[in-house]
Amino acid sequence: MVIENIGKFFDPESIAIIGASRTPGKAGYEIVRNILDNGFKGKIFLVNPHAKEILGIKAYPSVKEIPCTVDLAVLTIPAEATTEALKDCAERKIEAVVIASGGYAEIGEAGMKLQTEILRIAEESGIRIIGPNTSGIISTPSKLTASLFPLGKIRRGSISYIAQTGNFATHTMKWIMTGEEFGISRVVGLGNKCDVDDADVLEFLGEDAETKAIIMYVEGFKDARKLIEVAKKVSKKKPIVALKAGRTASGMQSAFSHTASMASNDSLVDAAFKQAGIVRVHKYSELINAAKALAFQPVPKGNKVAVLAPSGAMAVIAADACESIGLKIARLSEETLLRIRNISTSWIAIRNPVDMWGAVQTSGVEASYRIGMEAALSDRNVDAIVLILVITREIRPRSLGFIDEISQRHKTKPVLVTITGDKQLYEKAKRVLGKRGIPVFPPIEDAFVALSILYRCGQNLRQDSAPFAALQS
Amino acid sequence: MVIENIGKFFDPESIAIIGASRTPGKAGYEIVRNILDNGFKGKIFLVNPHAKEILGIKAYPSVKEIPCTVDLAVLTIPAEATTEALKDCAERKIEAVVIASGGYAEIGEAGMKLQTEILRIAEESGIRIIGPNTSGIISTPSKLTASLFPLGKIRRGSISYIAQTGNFATHTMKWIMTGEEFGISRVVGLGNKCDVDDADVLEFLGEDAETKAIIMYVEGFKDARKLIEVAKKVSKKKPIVALKAGRTASGMQSAFSHTASMASNDSLVDAAFKQAGIVRVHKYSELINAAKALAFQPVPKGNKVAVLAPSGAMAVIAADACESIGLKIARLSEETLLRIRNISTSWIAIRNPVDMWGAVQTSGVEASYRIGMEAALSDRNVDAIVLILVITREIRPRSLGFIDEISQRHKTKPVLVTITGDKQLYEKAKRVLGKRGIPVFPPIEDAFVALSILYRCGQNLRQDSAPFAALQS
Repeated sequence: MVIENIGKFFDPESIAIIGASRTPGKAGYEIVRNILDNGFKGKIFLVNPHAKEILGIKAYPSVKEIPCTVDLAVLTIPAEATTEALKDCAERKIEAVVIASGGYAEIGEAGMKLQTEILRIAEESGIRIIGPNTSGIISTPSKLTASLFPLGKIRRGSISYIAQTGNFATHTMKWIMTGEEFGISRVVGLGNKCDVDDADVLEFLGEDAETKAIIMYVEGFKDARKLIEVAKKVSKKKPIVALKAGRTASGMQSAFSHTASMASNDSLVDAAFKQAGIVRVHKYSELINAAKALAFQPVPKGNKVAVLAPSGAMAVIAADACESIGLKIARLSEETLLRIRNISTSWIAIRNPVDMWGAVQTSGVEASYRIGMEAALSDRNVDAIVLILVITREIRPRSLGFIDEISQRHKTKPVLVTITGDKQLYEKAKRVLGKRGIPVFPPIEDAFVALSILYRCGQNLRQDSAPFAALQS
Repeated sequence: MVIENIGKFFDPESIAIIGASRTPGKAGYEIVRNILDNGFKGKIFLVNPHAKEILGIKAYPSVKEIPCTVDLAVLTIPAEATTEALKDCAERKIEAVVIASGGYAEIGEAGMKLQTEILRIAEESGIRIIGPNTSGIISTPSKLTASLFPLGKIRRGSISYIAQTGNFATHTMKWIMTGEEFGISRVVGLGNKCDVDDADVLEFLGEDAETKAIIMYVEGFKDARKLIEVAKKVSKKKPIVALKAGRTASGMQSAFSHTASMASNDSLVDAAFKQAGIVRVHKYSELINAAKALAFQPVPKGNKVAVLAPSGAMAVIAADACESIGLKIARLSEETLLRIRNISTSWIAIRNPVDMWGAVQTSGVEASYRIGMEAALSDRNVDAIVLILVITREIRPRSLGFIDEISQRHKTKPVLVTITGDKQLYEKAKRVLGKRGIPVFPPIEDAFVALSILYRCGQNLRQDSAPFAALQS
């Protein structure tokens, strides 16, 4: 029942924008623009007592005038007008409401009173509320982007994202849409969490066929115990990766100012996340890199990594990068080593991480990496592979198709790529490989950090769960 | 005397390429191409007994036939031909020789014997050798790029770079030249270090007017004691930042295979670097970010940081990022807070890190960040500032000139920028600000890591040393 109602937020058949506006830049305009830009499948109703038409769509003076059932209402009206609108929603039996506007608990006592009042109305009438004070939700399976910020088309994929605030959810989406190739399924910025909280959404996403893995940005817990209990179940089926901020004294003070999040003992957070199967990261970039790795690749069965490096120095750096974050440099079989030695020069010692320099000099980048990659992925001592490439002018991004091709033959072993050399060619290669489901990371260590996150996620998954790799982004 | 000879490598008035080639792709061709591309100021002599002319330049059958003095010779001939060529160099009183070719100590006993032999010749004749087994050197003040890899034009700047291997030096240069805006002064890939080692070059760079700061990639030490002694002196005048790889068990094994570097107890390395004033980093990207920060900004007097953040969540993340790496969130004065409160909305608590959301809503990005930046940099409690921006479609990179303008009025306080939102606009903003000497980092934590490196460098500098900011990139 709870989950069913949460589903209305993400897959409504009809949506009403209460406070739709004709003025570009205003929340009530941008949200309609976003919904149209993304080609929302269902019916759209706009409510504005002062307009007859907005962006070519008929506007109603009140939600009560809408002639059909409405699944989801998004309110972009001032805080003081909310209670009345919410009562109208109750009358129309709307069960899911996003309150986008601010002016509630985050502004102090008066706002808190208002927030308590809207929660009372919601509870009486069975309405579930997301917000207030959020920039709304995104749901690509329904082609829905109910966000206040201009976002353009959101690429569909399998990663879902629960963020403490709508603002944070939004600019992260913009960064991913413009800089990465992987896609997104459900996104929610929870705002003040007066009703729906992280645990509610997590429970829904755990059952959601459109969600393969979940990333989270958390400042504070509304009900830590509930979140941990839900996460314990979900993390056995799907990876959960979270950035929990407010871990230093200054961070906690800032979190309190921002979302009234209470300070939490950070080592307790660590312990609770571990128990819950939530993989914790400490950097914004790690959260995005984790999403990319999870979107494109399976989790490895173990932590034994093969590395092909373009130079001896990169091999050394790769070994350090692995072992300092809980991965192991795989002990390659004699057969694997022999296959690579056969294409290398005699004076380079072939061990893992593999210094490909000699092979590249002899056979070129593509041929040598092709043989090295096939040999390493066929080795039963290897759980995953990281390819380090230098791209200058000799190798063109389009010649990298072999990576995807060989990866397809070893579907249970993740393949991650990091590239140095020419930055512009790096960007091209990242796009080309990203479109084929191969994640590319900036040089050098980020690829290993992402792989360690995949590994930790895999450790939490239930052994008998359906293969995680089945639902590809 | 030693330093004088090292200077010949970086500022030769004439250079001979022994083993120059007409075949694109060959080392002996690419090196000539690089020298021409960079417009080397001095005389160029090519040596190849089988060619009369290469790339429009006369070729001599032997170095002995060259009619003028030669300051620097670069050998790209096979290992077995080196001893003869080196004797010729001795006869011509050439004092600086780069041996680019491999086939020496790194291939085993026979190569080691050859390396001992060339070192003997060098010592007898007073020749200093860089290499063997290196892709050579770069020196932008002399418009010289004696590298085996196609590199194109190297941008001049104030950062010098000592790398364990030429290969590593080269692809790092390519990455910086194509992805960053800061410039480079002297670069050396030391290769087998049969003669010239890190300490020799460091001593030279310490006195070099063209070098403001030094970055290093180290796998093993030839003479750790000497390096520490030299670094102790140099780090009082110029920042030294080093990535020392081979810090894990696997990393040490790889380093031994690669450059026969002996395992070193990593906590001893930490202690020695600390004593020597070398700031140690553990990631490749940190080394490049450190170089960018050092190229563009002064070191801060202390570790008290002001942060302007575009949202409350970013403020929380920024506070964590500061305090987890030895920086402090500055306590802003009442006057500073008041100046920012005056442009913000009443319901956002203004403290450091500053949540600029309210101010941006009221006054726009440029006006609010302008006031916030000026207020924070004028505050005597602030040693440095980090600006976090979200760029979507509202703000154009060109409108960011105010950052440079205000930074110019507060020259002793470093300004670092990190941007999220639209990745393409991020890249544009990074270029625009980079050209004005403002370093831009990917979101979010990298900017704080770079600032902490600046801070640690500053702690090593002698109080009475000339202002570090004097020589701008």
